[in-house]
Amino acid sequence: MADNWFTEVSINNGSAFSLQVKAKLHEEQTPYQRIEIYDTTHFGKLMAIDGCILLSSHDNFLYHEMMSHPVLFTHPNPKYVVIIGGGDCGTLREVLKHSTVIKVTQIAIDERITRLAEQYFPELHEASRDPRAELWFADGIQWMSGAKPGSVDVIIVDSTYPVGSAEQAFTEQFYRDCYKALSPEGLLIQRSESPLYHLNLIKAMRDAMHAAEFSHTYTLPFPQPIYPSGWMSATMASKEIPAGDFRQQDAAYKAFETRYYNAAIHKAALANPQFMNEIFK
Amino acid sequence: MADNWFTEVSINNGSAFSLQVKAKLHEEQTPYQRIEIYDTTHFGKLMAIDGCILLSSHDNFLYHEMMSHPVLFTHPNPKYVVIIGGGDCGTLREVLKHSTVIKVTQIAIDERITRLAEQYFPELHEASRDPRAELWFADGIQWMSGAKPGSVDVIIVDSTYPVGSAEQAFTEQFYRDCYKALSPEGLLIQRSESPLYHLNLIKAMRDAMHAAEFSHTYTLPFPQPIYPSGWMSATMASKEIPAGDFRQQDAAYKAFETRYYNAAIHKAALANPQFMNEIFK
Repeated sequence: MADNWFTEVSINNGSAFSLQVKAKLHEEQTPYQRIEIYDTTHFGKLMAIDGCILLSSHDNFLYHEMMSHPVLFTHPNPKYVVIIGGGDCGTLREVLKHSTVIKVTQIAIDERITRLAEQYFPELHEASRDPRAELWFADGIQWMSGAKPGSVDVIIVDSTYPVGSAEQAFTEQFYRDCYKALSPEGLLIQRSESPLYHLNLIKAMRDAMHAAEFSHTYTLPFPQPIYPSGWMSATMASKEIPAGDFRQQDAAYKAFETRYYNAAIHKAALANPQFMNEIFK
Repeated sequence: MADNWFTEVSINNGSAFSLQVKAKLHEEQTPYQRIEIYDTTHFGKLMAIDGCILLSSHDNFLYHEMMSHPVLFTHPNPKYVVIIGGGDCGTLREVLKHSTVIKVTQIAIDERITRLAEQYFPELHEASRDPRAELWFADGIQWMSGAKPGSVDVIIVDSTYPVGSAEQAFTEQFYRDCYKALSPEGLLIQRSESPLYHLNLIKAMRDAMHAAEFSHTYTLPFPQPIYPSGWMSATMASKEIPAGDFRQQDAAYKAFETRYYNAAIHKAALANPQFMNEIFK
């Protein structure tokens, strides 16, 4: 592989994924991480964090739609939404498509991701000036520990693989803080990596969510070519409501456009492969 | 990327997927193609054809289960099955799990793939000596043109991407031959590549199937880490029966084990992403 490829190696799984690049557009070391931005031949712009692909213009719609619409159409009337992480603002854009939403508070630690996404992925920022959106640049885990009890309808944890500071987003303590911040019908959804590569991690997340008193957990697999194995998941936890049901009519007649999500895809994402069912049962 | 990686480049999509290898176990040029076999660090054995990954021990269950069980549980009573291609015998193994099946005729062009799979992927050949299985090494496209009309319940086209001789498996003429060979309740399923990379190909396949008089087509996406984009699909065509329905009770209480497939996954695979629906409508 010559210089004109960006490669992410998944060393624990003996695989690698590469994208052909035309140019490196930016590179910087922030207090938190190293950010690189490339122009690719077929995937549009590419942002990588500490050598791992965060998103591409071409396929980020899969991830951002699945981190937002399933959980928002599961809550009966989501008004107050908190996003932990999500600095590129792609998830925020999707959340703001829901007319029930009164306020979205996003707490991302590294403002540079947001500023660089504004510059290189302007389509993700179409909605960031929406008066319902409030952006904070701070430690989301700490913020959650001080959130007003019962004040949030939906929490979206749009953070990376649990290494370094992201690790705390996978602990029972964090889930307890989320549980406390949520209203009785409240729901949490979190990026939970590859069903093929990270099944033990997903199982541990679900166990920690249950230990923190969440009644129901659902893991929703979806395709994501630029992430290791090309297969991703989000795990949803519910305080009370049966999170396998959702507002099917509202999803089917939604007043906004999507490219991956629809009511049938939502229902489909609630189905798990046999090998996952056997681990989760 | 050093010598200890096997890389498949998808040049038309500016991406590449690599597996870390411990050793090359075999390489040969047959009259039809170049076959390589490797031992990988995390994916078990790997077979590549003309530089493209055909299968790995670790994740072939996804493909083989999705090429067989959805179509077999859609047909009300599948007795006579034909597999075109499928030389590694992984699909054959899954088909033979169905007790309704009286006979499976497999026509693969290159006997060397079968012999090498027997040696390096013996688990795929567990059932190949089943007296219901009949293996022919010949041109499957030509075989289909001479098949007895109305004699087949299910046709599975387990061939590769349409280059070279495989191209004929994507033509209206081939689908007409399949249609003629099928009984009134007959169904065809065929590997149809990546929803993200090959949507035009999938659309063309579906159009050709309809042109050949098939009433219904369904494209079933599924994850497949070792194939380009990590996302795959199979496209099913039905002469008469509504192929969106299937024997849900039989699938739910099947008398054999699977690792990916179950009744919920079958139903889920019938849901298509919004961008696919928009192209297919």
